[in-house]
Amino acid sequence: MILVNGEDHACLDAHDRGLAYGDGVFRTLRSEAGEPLWWADHYAKLRADCAALALDCPAEDILRGEVGRVAVGVSGVVKILVTRGSGTRGYLPARGAATRVVMASPLPPHAVPGAPIDVRARWCRLRLARQPRLAGVKHLNRLENVLARAEWDDPEIFEGLLCDDADVVVGGVMSNVFWIRAGELFTPDLGACGVAGVARARVLRAAARLGLRARIERLPAAAILAADEVMICNSLIGVRRVARLEDKTWMPAGWTATLNAALYEDLV
Amino acid sequence: MILVNGEDHACLDAHDRGLAYGDGVFRTLRSEAGEPLWWADHYAKLRADCAALALDCPAEDILRGEVGRVAVGVSGVVKILVTRGSGTRGYLPARGAATRVVMASPLPPHAVPGAPIDVRARWCRLRLARQPRLAGVKHLNRLENVLARAEWDDPEIFEGLLCDDADVVVGGVMSNVFWIRAGELFTPDLGACGVAGVARARVLRAAARLGLRARIERLPAAAILAADEVMICNSLIGVRRVARLEDKTWMPAGWTATLNAALYEDLV
Repeated sequence: MILVNGEDHACLDAHDRGLAYGDGVFRTLRSEAGEPLWWADHYAKLRADCAALALDCPAEDILRGEVGRVAVGVSGVVKILVTRGSGTRGYLPARGAATRVVMASPLPPHAVPGAPIDVRARWCRLRLARQPRLAGVKHLNRLENVLARAEWDDPEIFEGLLCDDADVVVGGVMSNVFWIRAGELFTPDLGACGVAGVARARVLRAAARLGLRARIERLPAAAILAADEVMICNSLIGVRRVARLEDKTWMPAGWTATLNAALYEDLV
Repeated sequence: MILVNGEDHACLDAHDRGLAYGDGVFRTLRSEAGEPLWWADHYAKLRADCAALALDCPAEDILRGEVGRVAVGVSGVVKILVTRGSGTRGYLPARGAATRVVMASPLPPHAVPGAPIDVRARWCRLRLARQPRLAGVKHLNRLENVLARAEWDDPEIFEGLLCDDADVVVGGVMSNVFWIRAGELFTPDLGACGVAGVARARVLRAAARLGLRARIERLPAAAILAADEVMICNSLIGVRRVARLEDKTWMPAGWTATLNAALYEDLV
């Protein structure tokens, strides 16, 4: 089922600014037997991302109701899009008239329960451009991710890691990256580019609960190679261990299971 | 009328990658009594932009036929979008199954015949991020343009000029920029960001015919302030003279009319 502004449509106005300009934001979340996982976090992030683009965020009760309608009984993926709606032609944004799209789909194979915790990654050649005005926001301008993901089709490679044009590590094509080095947790600063995902925020909160010092920094690719354990995360896959990155391999150091378990503790 | 893959729909699949990721390109062109202006140039640019994203470009005869259907008898704007279609969820692009959308709308007031040739411009605060992989391409990731256009709502300001994050001039929010200095024509190099429009290419060809030396360079904002005449152009407005930029004003030096007339000469 696809709901467009609450109506059971499968289609969208071709004038919508989400299509014309990517003028909108989105959320991808997991539902378990119809229940959206980490709903409060996802709604808070949607609200923050809407604010970053001066978009009207749909009211929580309306959106939660629509998520319930598309996800009823389903364990799968729920995707929410909020766009600036169908305004007049031209770049000038008009306030109001946001479009919301809520849809459900099955879990992709790599996210089903029992999928391997250990994954293989590669470096992407594409360098992310630095745009502080859009950094961290999960907006609909994702051509860089598409180009980066197109760099490989080997199904053995689970994720591609990206640097910005200063060769600073940003994250994965579809995930955020973390690593442990000498008992400290590192993750890239996303002030210049990248998406600050809900799973990343939950890992950082989990680290605080565990007494694990977290360092959010701009670091080169070499910092990852020197790590004791490297992890990626997102709302569909939880935390996975990067067992191999190009020719570099790591033995498990135990952090992935700890952080993945903590990710699902709802203490907040 | 809105044609989606040749059918008279007003709506689009909500799974389309054009909406999900801005995974597509577009063209905005002018039609005069149903006839698309500069068709050969627009189709060539669409084809080049599709190639830059490894998108399948619709065949020229099919697209030209659809433009004729939406523009029949109309003097207005024709917009063409080509997206990567409705693939599977996730960033990995699948080949084939492109979606094409062709639609017509009335000319905006600033583009109707008789609109003033002299316009006023401002500098935008937003700095364009540099992404060589997407530079020049008129793709659907246009949030920077939306944010830049949102910086002003004074209807007296026709256009905002943009620099990249190295403070190098790139162009206007909806136009390309040119200037004359000491008998030479200058326009920004678009190897790092910006859209290389069809009108820009036609101005450069016109300059060659007129024996006007064109210099395509990375230059700071100060270079514009030192110009003898500053112009902006796009396919809807032709060439317009920037009579005022913030507090700086210019008297006409005659180049705008010359280049605008040359723009409409179909010698190629």
